[in-house]
Amino acid sequence: MNEPAFQDYYPDELSHCYGCGRLNEDGLQLKSHWDGDESVAFFTPRPEHTAIPGYVYGGLLASLIDCHGTGTAAAAGYQAAGRPMGSQPPLRYVTASLHVDYLRPTPLGNPLEIRGRVKEVKGRKVIIEAWIIADNAICVRGEVVAVQLPETMRFGS
Amino acid sequence: MNEPAFQDYYPDELSHCYGCGRLNEDGLQLKSHWDGDESVAFFTPRPEHTAIPGYVYGGLLASLIDCHGTGTAAAAGYQAAGRPMGSQPPLRYVTASLHVDYLRPTPLGNPLEIRGRVKEVKGRKVIIEAWIIADNAICVRGEVVAVQLPETMRFGS
Repeated sequence: MNEPAFQDYYPDELSHCYGCGRLNEDGLQLKSHWDGDESVAFFTPRPEHTAIPGYVYGGLLASLIDCHGTGTAAAAGYQAAGRPMGSQPPLRYVTASLHVDYLRPTPLGNPLEIRGRVKEVKGRKVIIEAWIIADNAICVRGEVVAVQLPETMRFGS
Repeated sequence: MNEPAFQDYYPDELSHCYGCGRLNEDGLQLKSHWDGDESVAFFTPRPEHTAIPGYVYGGLLASLIDCHGTGTAAAAGYQAAGRPMGSQPPLRYVTASLHVDYLRPTPLGNPLEIRGRVKEVKGRKVIIEAWIIADNAICVRGEVVAVQLPETMRFGS
């Protein structure tokens, strides 16, 4: 994966997200790429990302689904518009709604594989299905409804 | 609020959660209490908990809904069983599913108020509605389906 990640194309002023901003030094810095028709990212939880000892904290799993979802939404938005990623004006999505089903406890320690698939692209809205695999088992399934960032949010409040 | 929080009653071995474990020094240490029929918690996001500059990261908001939900589920479980909180054996809930609607951007800087209400207690399952208030406006609404922790998860993998 030498290609830049979806998140590497975000403009600097929109790259501070705790989950996926390359300029957030304290954050998770999630990186998502295409893998055929699906998108994929990998993340190894830190020891403190515990729920019950031995398992990954559900809030982190929700965060990974969220940021992988909005990243995949951006990539899908460019694709639907027939535009190369990073072309101007930038396409950046925020989450309107997030659903996460915890199918089984997610073991803490090994890298997690976060995968996504585009379910719908319609106007400013993109729906992404995502799931998380640990030790060869799907532990989490989620869905992200992402909407293109309103211009009013572009430079903060 | 001099009463112990719901999370203060969790047994030590189940108090390492990143979101609400009192023994997780790197975590958020969320504390939830009853306020009449509702539950309430307060949390001030750290500067790094950014989404777009000026707004709170959605993954953190999902985490607050999640941990406030499972905490409220525990309190509701004791209440439904007519047992004082902390009585043995401990009641501890994990999340089966989480839904979060981001109604408007949540401003970063001031304390957030996280509120919850018990929607259903049925056997080992508790459903909690929760919402987050910032600057006197509801920014986020969510629902947590919590289930009593399976004995197999009690001491990690």
